[in-house]
Amino acid sequence: MFQQVAVVGATGAVGQIILKLLEERKFQAAKFKLLSSARSAGKTVTFMGKPHVVEELTFDSFKGCDLVIASTPDDTAAKYLPAAVESGATVIDESGYFRMRPDVALVIPEINPQDAINAKGMIASPNCSTTQMAVALKPLHDAARVLRVIVSSYQAVSGAGLQGNVDLEQGTTAALSGGKYHYKAFAHPIAFNAIPQIGSFKEDDYTSEELKMVYETRKILGDQSIQISATCIRIPVANCHSETINVETARPVSPEEARKLFAAFPGIVVADDPKTGHYPMPSDCSGRDEVFIGRIRRDLSHPNALNFWCVSDNLRKGAATNAVQIAELLSKHRFGK
Amino acid sequence: MFQQVAVVGATGAVGQIILKLLEERKFQAAKFKLLSSARSAGKTVTFMGKPHVVEELTFDSFKGCDLVIASTPDDTAAKYLPAAVESGATVIDESGYFRMRPDVALVIPEINPQDAINAKGMIASPNCSTTQMAVALKPLHDAARVLRVIVSSYQAVSGAGLQGNVDLEQGTTAALSGGKYHYKAFAHPIAFNAIPQIGSFKEDDYTSEELKMVYETRKILGDQSIQISATCIRIPVANCHSETINVETARPVSPEEARKLFAAFPGIVVADDPKTGHYPMPSDCSGRDEVFIGRIRRDLSHPNALNFWCVSDNLRKGAATNAVQIAELLSKHRFGK
Repeated sequence: MFQQVAVVGATGAVGQIILKLLEERKFQAAKFKLLSSARSAGKTVTFMGKPHVVEELTFDSFKGCDLVIASTPDDTAAKYLPAAVESGATVIDESGYFRMRPDVALVIPEINPQDAINAKGMIASPNCSTTQMAVALKPLHDAARVLRVIVSSYQAVSGAGLQGNVDLEQGTTAALSGGKYHYKAFAHPIAFNAIPQIGSFKEDDYTSEELKMVYETRKILGDQSIQISATCIRIPVANCHSETINVETARPVSPEEARKLFAAFPGIVVADDPKTGHYPMPSDCSGRDEVFIGRIRRDLSHPNALNFWCVSDNLRKGAATNAVQIAELLSKHRFGK
Repeated sequence: MFQQVAVVGATGAVGQIILKLLEERKFQAAKFKLLSSARSAGKTVTFMGKPHVVEELTFDSFKGCDLVIASTPDDTAAKYLPAAVESGATVIDESGYFRMRPDVALVIPEINPQDAINAKGMIASPNCSTTQMAVALKPLHDAARVLRVIVSSYQAVSGAGLQGNVDLEQGTTAALSGGKYHYKAFAHPIAFNAIPQIGSFKEDDYTSEELKMVYETRKILGDQSIQISATCIRIPVANCHSETINVETARPVSPEEARKLFAAFPGIVVADDPKTGHYPMPSDCSGRDEVFIGRIRRDLSHPNALNFWCVSDNLRKGAATNAVQIAELLSKHRFGK
């Protein structure tokens, strides 16, 4: 087993779920170390049945650690995580900072576990909106080669961290009573609204979130030829991202075949029975670790295209679950369990 | 001027706005008659500065009417509106019942005003999600021929009538306090959720709302060759539908050209300055009569495709405004004002 596992950002929205999952899934390590920014350091957290005092993250935090699971803002990751790799630890990083580096593995265990095993120190976990789409695309890509993807997202506020949920709750409460609320995590009111910007604007007037869906998906699927067009929208949902996904494949895939391909793929749950009004919704998928797919149907506008609707818990499979699954596959590979 | 104008469904979500618009825009008629179902009949409504008692809709309601503007459920329209046409009135119908009949005009005044002028008695106003998309597509179609459209909607609860807004408000209030609420307008909770079904399931597992976007758009633009793929999603927004629209044209249209084409088209407002974070949102467009377009950018996945984001007040341009604009164009054509 790992000798010392550090969880960086242990008090954050994703960090809290990482701790919960490590407990639930009985992850084995001789010792755990919980790290956070100075603001949260000193807090006592009960973890694996024992009280743990959260320590402040410093350059010396990683001494003796052989595994680091980090969920922090990009700048924190950039500053501290290279020190962890230098000190010999394998790092699983949730931030966006290292994902696109050629020497960093970008891993979804259901898709490219070998990349985690071959990684030289740093393994990145993909962006939440990317992960659920990449999982959905993988069985289609293997069976019929994905040529082009047009995706529109319906993203939850929890993707903006704990403050995102505070903003949604307090902003909505204020809106219902006709009051005002000063949003901290969002540039515009999110209560009863839709904001067509997640992240910052980059080349070609795309947002950073939209470009992540393009570049990360290609890297994870190991195919630079996949054409992807993404539009990312924040909506007033507490947790779980949803996506409408239109996929053009090299040969036609019928909805029946797609249902079978999805159902046979690990980590996907098909929830698709229009006759009984059964399809995935954020309200049903929060707290679950799988990617849920429904509304599977042929695209009436193209002979080789399919439409479907994909929902997943962005804090779990979109972040914490994926990181813990990477930790588990490393543990199994190195220690046989 | 028209001698007697009947407004059917005068107490409904759209009917109330029709009355407001007729007042605001000083629509000229010798007499107005307000009609509703038995449930709302007998109410007194102040309209054009005078109290009007709302009368119950019957087969005899249309005697002496030369114009009828109706916003009712499909079955009510099916039952009563043919009597209005038979009695010699021109009918502007908001319902979905008559829209696709070959002998019925389906009209957006900015696009096909002549169809209203040529109509034989019955003129239909399109579905709300269709109208804003058709307005956005028209200048692109005229300039570069639209070949294929992939649209995902983010639809407000007001599209489900007044009960939709009651459900959102009361359901959200209950959700915030951990309480329960029995939804009446929706099959699933809409508070903090996204529901991938609007209308009922039809052929190929598409919903009625999605198929309306396909068939109505082709009829309005007068081009059966346009390929359209639609996914319609209800989100917890009170008013204003939003849409991500991907358009493939016969020749490339740059974002700059698209901005110019949109800006020059009547009824479109371009709100698109990523540098300052300016784009349309439901919170800014409610109560407005135009179609707002932003996030205009080339589709990185296809040389001849564009992406944009389109927001419009579904009760106004998506329903009431469009109907009143049709009434105005008929009045101008027949009476010169």
